[in-house]
Amino acid sequence: MSFDVTPQSMSFATPLPLRSGSAIGDYALAYETYGTLNADRSNAVLVCHALNASHHVAGQYAGQPKSQGWWDNMIGPGKSVDTDRFFVIGINNLGSCFGSTGPMHTNPATGRPWGADFPVVTVEDWVDAQARLLDALGIDTLAAVMGGSLGGMQALSWTLQYPERVRHAAVIASAPNLNAENIAFNEVARRAIVTDPDFHGGHFYDYGVVPKRGLTIARMIGHITYLSDDVMNAKFGRQLREGMQVRYTTHDVEFQIESYLRHQGDKFSEYFDANTYLLITRALDYFDPAAAYGGSLRAAFERAMAKFLLVSFTTDWRFSPARSREIVKALLDNRRSVSYAEIDAPHGHDAFLLDDTRYLGVVRAWFDGIAKELQ
Amino acid sequence: MSFDVTPQSMSFATPLPLRSGSAIGDYALAYETYGTLNADRSNAVLVCHALNASHHVAGQYAGQPKSQGWWDNMIGPGKSVDTDRFFVIGINNLGSCFGSTGPMHTNPATGRPWGADFPVVTVEDWVDAQARLLDALGIDTLAAVMGGSLGGMQALSWTLQYPERVRHAAVIASAPNLNAENIAFNEVARRAIVTDPDFHGGHFYDYGVVPKRGLTIARMIGHITYLSDDVMNAKFGRQLREGMQVRYTTHDVEFQIESYLRHQGDKFSEYFDANTYLLITRALDYFDPAAAYGGSLRAAFERAMAKFLLVSFTTDWRFSPARSREIVKALLDNRRSVSYAEIDAPHGHDAFLLDDTRYLGVVRAWFDGIAKELQ
Repeated sequence: MSFDVTPQSMSFATPLPLRSGSAIGDYALAYETYGTLNADRSNAVLVCHALNASHHVAGQYAGQPKSQGWWDNMIGPGKSVDTDRFFVIGINNLGSCFGSTGPMHTNPATGRPWGADFPVVTVEDWVDAQARLLDALGIDTLAAVMGGSLGGMQALSWTLQYPERVRHAAVIASAPNLNAENIAFNEVARRAIVTDPDFHGGHFYDYGVVPKRGLTIARMIGHITYLSDDVMNAKFGRQLREGMQVRYTTHDVEFQIESYLRHQGDKFSEYFDANTYLLITRALDYFDPAAAYGGSLRAAFERAMAKFLLVSFTTDWRFSPARSREIVKALLDNRRSVSYAEIDAPHGHDAFLLDDTRYLGVVRAWFDGIAKELQ
Repeated sequence: MSFDVTPQSMSFATPLPLRSGSAIGDYALAYETYGTLNADRSNAVLVCHALNASHHVAGQYAGQPKSQGWWDNMIGPGKSVDTDRFFVIGINNLGSCFGSTGPMHTNPATGRPWGADFPVVTVEDWVDAQARLLDALGIDTLAAVMGGSLGGMQALSWTLQYPERVRHAAVIASAPNLNAENIAFNEVARRAIVTDPDFHGGHFYDYGVVPKRGLTIARMIGHITYLSDDVMNAKFGRQLREGMQVRYTTHDVEFQIESYLRHQGDKFSEYFDANTYLLITRALDYFDPAAAYGGSLRAAFERAMAKFLLVSFTTDWRFSPARSREIVKALLDNRRSVSYAEIDAPHGHDAFLLDDTRYLGVVRAWFDGIAKELQ
């Protein structure tokens, strides 16, 4: 049971300074809101998205019954994040390909699509852009910021960049930075895209093509890292496609897992922008709030004032529970308020998007506590 | 300290029937031998290779001081597999690209390179070809067959296909079959190769090109799965390349792990054959000795008569210790003689090729036992 929503857009004329030293001027951000902002504007919850998601977090588009937002199981009337009590904001990040200004839009300096010339954006830049949207919406302080995976990194960064504007932060299936293996997978995905002859140095829009091969490979790699070994074995195992015998081929799809991955890769390459993929994976690589503090996460979190919820999933090998525990430890070392749940779920990194009674229950209880503070 | 060796080649005129129903006629196998076959021909040890290795197992080529074989730390005079006592045979598998008949050789039916028309070969086919080489060398029974990873699968298969011809089998860092995740990584690597425009449906030889982009991506993916998370973090972590600051780019090499992976990928694409990569990864996918026994590894091993050594490495996430333990369990259920060592090594799957005193000691002790049986 979902509800109808309408995406919105807001334009910004003042250039946004970026961590790279560059700036982006005259940009738009796509966003959605669910629920009602209360009289003292204290019930706003900002939801930050991960690699391939968007501002369409919850609800559905009118007349499109299969268009539920990516966290519709979590957010809505009566759900864990209850839109009868909270005013929830979904936002599409700069550089993404779902409505906010990104590489496929026109570079005012050239009159042609930005392509590879779109400025590199960081998690910190996204948070700055989100803060400006909140300013425009007249929201000074967030009841909570929340996100999973890369979205969790943005939630973390909110508590460091704007500590006085965030009362609570939910950081789910996330990490304080990428480790070498995470960067390695990103790099292979990027190489697959960049070396696709249809990439044309990032200016493929001018050639009327899309680097589909590279995007497909990138998504297949990503998908493997989102699933646990266990769930892959349970769902696909060594099963051949229905009715098939081993065919002794090197090119054909024979195993079900091959069929699944190719389908996921093909589907993704139809709608996702290659330059956006490069930008977002790079933002992941760069995120490292401890770096400015000699690698000390404890020192980095000294400035955080929010109350935290951390959630990790036992079979997540992309951002393992150990990575969440690093954050928990750094917060506890600073005597911050932290709730931490390690959910025994079989689904790997993807678990943060799925229905799990205990997981949804933990988030519900935590938001119930925030709602009580509002009264 | 190594010793000089000379590669050899043997031609076979009788066609080899393959599991696919096809056959390959008039083929050659590259091989090397180290040590001396004893009078009763009872001290032969066959070494089977993994994905990107060859018959050049030990020793070096005269005048090429950096040309040590891939298991030179394991095999040689006075080493764990002591060539002063054993007659060791390294063999290059059919379909490989290091001397044995493979896709880059001439298809007698067309007069052009086999390319994608080279018949699909399985682990079982390789073992059959190896058995014929032993026949030609006058070796009826092996003192031992040994191999790591895919080489371990061949060693396993020897004990099932020719139980009376193998007295001992050393199966190192291996698995009784690939799981869904293993197949998934193979599939992504294959897609990267097959969708490279320079692949030309596997007939790139005719076009004077090589699908370097695809091979590079394939190798980068493979390399990630060979290393443990721990060793990657220890070796590379989040370190930038020497003297570098973050540069805010999506294309450039910035992190050391990126530089390392690109180098590995580029190097590999210079020497490895794309069709061979497809063939060998498919042989890995197909290997599943339990399949003919309703999935029961216990039932499959009823016919094995050899004494076994299994070795696994704690941080190997490609073929984890749990996979070796499945084999151990199936053998014990059949009351076979099994030694099993789980080595606490940080290097992931690659550990089977590296110096580790405990690992090399376990293999040495086991082969010492075999040597005593010979006296």
